[in-house]
Amino acid sequence: MSGKHQIKVLPSGLVLQVDEGETVYEALLRNNVPIAVVCGGKGVCGKCGMRVLKGVSSPPTVKEEKWAQVLGGDVRLACQVRMLSDGVIELNQAAATAKAKILTWGQEVKTEVDPAVTRREVLLPTPSLEDQRADLERLLQAVGVQSYDGYLLRKLSDCLWGSKFDVEAVLYDGELIDVRPKVPKAGVYGIAFDIGTTTIVGYLYDLESGKLVSVRSSYNDQIRYGEDVISRIEFASKGQENTSKMQDAVVGTINNIIADLLKTANIDKDDVYDIVCAGNTIMASFLLGSSCYHSSRTPYIPPFTSPVRVKARDLHLNSNPSGYLKTLPSISAYVGGDLVADILVSEIYKHEGPVALVDLGTNGEVIVKTEDDFMATSC
Amino acid sequence: MSGKHQIKVLPSGLVLQVDEGETVYEALLRNNVPIAVVCGGKGVCGKCGMRVLKGVSSPPTVKEEKWAQVLGGDVRLACQVRMLSDGVIELNQAAATAKAKILTWGQEVKTEVDPAVTRREVLLPTPSLEDQRADLERLLQAVGVQSYDGYLLRKLSDCLWGSKFDVEAVLYDGELIDVRPKVPKAGVYGIAFDIGTTTIVGYLYDLESGKLVSVRSSYNDQIRYGEDVISRIEFASKGQENTSKMQDAVVGTINNIIADLLKTANIDKDDVYDIVCAGNTIMASFLLGSSCYHSSRTPYIPPFTSPVRVKARDLHLNSNPSGYLKTLPSISAYVGGDLVADILVSEIYKHEGPVALVDLGTNGEVIVKTEDDFMATSC
Repeated sequence: MSGKHQIKVLPSGLVLQVDEGETVYEALLRNNVPIAVVCGGKGVCGKCGMRVLKGVSSPPTVKEEKWAQVLGGDVRLACQVRMLSDGVIELNQAAATAKAKILTWGQEVKTEVDPAVTRREVLLPTPSLEDQRADLERLLQAVGVQSYDGYLLRKLSDCLWGSKFDVEAVLYDGELIDVRPKVPKAGVYGIAFDIGTTTIVGYLYDLESGKLVSVRSSYNDQIRYGEDVISRIEFASKGQENTSKMQDAVVGTINNIIADLLKTANIDKDDVYDIVCAGNTIMASFLLGSSCYHSSRTPYIPPFTSPVRVKARDLHLNSNPSGYLKTLPSISAYVGGDLVADILVSEIYKHEGPVALVDLGTNGEVIVKTEDDFMATSC
Repeated sequence: MSGKHQIKVLPSGLVLQVDEGETVYEALLRNNVPIAVVCGGKGVCGKCGMRVLKGVSSPPTVKEEKWAQVLGGDVRLACQVRMLSDGVIELNQAAATAKAKILTWGQEVKTEVDPAVTRREVLLPTPSLEDQRADLERLLQAVGVQSYDGYLLRKLSDCLWGSKFDVEAVLYDGELIDVRPKVPKAGVYGIAFDIGTTTIVGYLYDLESGKLVSVRSSYNDQIRYGEDVISRIEFASKGQENTSKMQDAVVGTINNIIADLLKTANIDKDDVYDIVCAGNTIMASFLLGSSCYHSSRTPYIPPFTSPVRVKARDLHLNSNPSGYLKTLPSISAYVGGDLVADILVSEIYKHEGPVALVDLGTNGEVIVKTEDDFMATSC
């Protein structure tokens, strides 16, 4: 009655192995089965309700007995149950389904298109015995910049010679980040991400026209480690491995959304050069691989609040490896870059009288603007 | 008599599988068995001589028949032989052994120690409700820099809080690249690599004292794709995959040497922040993932000649991920950074009269200095 067991998980029908001593919740996590929990698997939130349809399981814990009074006599908690034989279980509907609605703006602000990424057509002088400048120096001199991404050398020569030195250079704030053949259809794209605690939304933009090309959203895969930020901080604080899992989860969700956007718009991943993320301070920290233990305890110190920029390849993003991901600036551990975006988009700073802004999400935030100052809080 | 076969390779005794249609040479390459060839596997150089001791093999090719007159009647060429049954083969001694002698300098030049990497002890003010600055901003302000590696955020908070804000900051040319606890034994190290076509030598230096800590060398693993640069260029030019193999081979050799150096000196890989490589232009290009097709054809244009700097993690180096690798500047496709190093170390630029410098390696180079100028060539 001990050892490893096979269980079939309904409604998906997936069959997986439960290792010795492992709870059903732990086995689901290990097998990447989406399961929504709020408490991080402590038998507190009751969200991971399930039934054992077949097989022998551990007797109900005290926590399960309490929840059975609310959820029904035969409902168990996946985070408490251990299987003692092969069997069949059924997850309850709320725990098993994960499908996000697409969120769209109610208000758009007119902005000037002024992207960090620009491209420039360059026709280089053809090399000769009289002009033996190397490929890189030839290109840098023609474009008139000194800063470049060394990663480019993997493709530079083949591109220049293959295109007979008639190419497009792509620059990011003056740094040469790409060189590519002149292809009429190829554009220059960026994606703005709203990294919510529950839902992540990606907006694909044509950076030259400023036009919104496509929008896609998905549940933040971090939900599997807890539904609210406090549970996730607790999970991530248990060690470097858990912090990495939290980072992998959000990067995985972002990459899935990017894949969706690219497929819909029929765009190549290498044409996406800029990714901008707004999210609360904890979401931004997890994204860059920071543990947030001290954000949750007095005196509430976040890992960073200034805008941070990293190469896309450092996060294994599904975009041009020489492009960048950057976060919006945040204000404190609980007043994040999403609030900064709220202020910018709502333009409440233009109002003369006192005005309040309320952001309702998994966490709620309130900003009050007086004549002289802003005050913000969250819960 | 067709399909996959098992062969035992003497003198090592290794057993490996030869796939259908594959030559013995290709099977050895695929299984990472070191084998020295000059011609890249075309039956031209005769270096991959071997005997079939047991089993059925393809009849000798015309190229093999020619070489049999030189090498002996039963000697086959691994790049030509296909096995038609299981069997036993014996590689000849020259092809099978690969052990590099350690090269050391005959002359040392006194230099001032002025490393790109420096460390600074910093004791930060402890956070409080009155001073809620984020970890990153707190550190940057204390160190007095603005530039930092975003990759650092993966460890920053844990390090600061774990060390009670009494830490060491490591800077590379003014960029904050590391923060670490104050550990008396931990130093700041760099490795200088001489990337030869045949042999790679690594010199581990203590960057603060300028002291040479250890020296290790190894054959350049690119030898498996050809012994001279022209064969390797030909191999690498066959497509992106081959260019990557060439890069992986040299990075693999460098990483093995680093592992050796660190073990000998009992140093942690994260304490190595700077890696400088001198090599001919082709070696430097392969290292950074460039194909060199046009270096070998008139008008002989290399991918780059200026010094290039990339993050260690971009090459998956066995050193601190936020540190750098940089190449010495080279002059042209066949007058490389190794020659520049020769000039610097020999100090021939200080001589008043005409002087010649000869560098004998797998390739030979000659530099002549006249009153007004330098002339260099290679073969």
